[in-house]
Amino acid sequence: MKDRIILTIGRQFGSGGGLVGKQLAKALGIGYYDKELLAVAARESGLCQETFERADERTDSGLSRALTAGYSCMGMYMPYPGILSNDGLFKFQSDAIRHLAEQESCVIVGRCADYILRDNPVCLSFFIHDSKENRTNRIKSYRQINDEEAAEQMRKNDKTRAAYYNYYTNKTWGVAASYRLTIDVSVLGIDGTTAFIKDFVERAF
Amino acid sequence: MKDRIILTIGRQFGSGGGLVGKQLAKALGIGYYDKELLAVAARESGLCQETFERADERTDSGLSRALTAGYSCMGMYMPYPGILSNDGLFKFQSDAIRHLAEQESCVIVGRCADYILRDNPVCLSFFIHDSKENRTNRIKSYRQINDEEAAEQMRKNDKTRAAYYNYYTNKTWGVAASYRLTIDVSVLGIDGTTAFIKDFVERAF
Repeated sequence: MKDRIILTIGRQFGSGGGLVGKQLAKALGIGYYDKELLAVAARESGLCQETFERADERTDSGLSRALTAGYSCMGMYMPYPGILSNDGLFKFQSDAIRHLAEQESCVIVGRCADYILRDNPVCLSFFIHDSKENRTNRIKSYRQINDEEAAEQMRKNDKTRAAYYNYYTNKTWGVAASYRLTIDVSVLGIDGTTAFIKDFVERAF
Repeated sequence: MKDRIILTIGRQFGSGGGLVGKQLAKALGIGYYDKELLAVAARESGLCQETFERADERTDSGLSRALTAGYSCMGMYMPYPGILSNDGLFKFQSDAIRHLAEQESCVIVGRCADYILRDNPVCLSFFIHDSKENRTNRIKSYRQINDEEAAEQMRKNDKTRAAYYNYYTNKTWGVAASYRLTIDVSVLGIDGTTAFIKDFVERAF
């Protein structure tokens, strides 16, 4: 296998895509970046992590674009709306993803990493989905909520992720042609899907 | 592996999806139905194959729906516009697909087979795509045409296939969640993709 490999994972909310990514990183002995990416972006940019968390995988609304004449972070007034808009933060996060990909092999979950690294020859992109039933059960179990609340969170979070992805890339979230491989977790389960993707990576590289 | 398996393959035009399906069927020692399905539908319905070919993977246009007050097949006037509309032919073809799936293991290419067999527990659905460059070269080589003509055929045929799929199913053509596995042929090539899908089938069943 190549010395450096970067695997990006897009995922439906509640599909177990993050877990597949974590297991895959462990099986291959490489780094794993999901929320961890926000700390990297914060460290590199000098901005606080809370700022990245607030904007995580979201686009600015038209209203927030109009209102960001200033911004507060950890109680301090930040006077640079351009930099601290979600668009500005996306730029910092994209730089952090590119730097990571130059430094180490890793799995990166979400955050348009597949698009940011589209010209990187050692990057493979994946999209993970699952049946509504499995996703509902997973969300209910994680968040201790009922069926209706889980269904609503699934709908809202997928919508937010799709809007974020479609806004920042020239591609469409969840469309097969946007990724190298997409897979329905309900066929092989979390462990089986992880092993299968690992096999694909080994065949590809 | 199970005694009976049905594999359906959706594919971008020029992606090599048909060839992957043919090789997969050969490797598994099971039947292969692409255009072959039209002969089955013709035989079962008693209608002529030419009628199915004319409607193959196409929806009726609004105009043709309005005009099909009669229909000619092999030079004979057919007085049953309802049956011979593309909607009517889709019904015959769907029955043929369901009968096939009851009788033998096989690979079925296109024709909304994944949707028609959605409740069949031994059916797995795939979608094959490839880079625009590879698809263009494949179409040029098959049809002896230039770059521009290949690009235009790719655009038109994908559009027609998507319209047909979206019209007859509750799903969206080419969207990851519509299939169990989707794969970009450019990573492993035709032979490698075939072997990889075969491996998925063996792991699933």
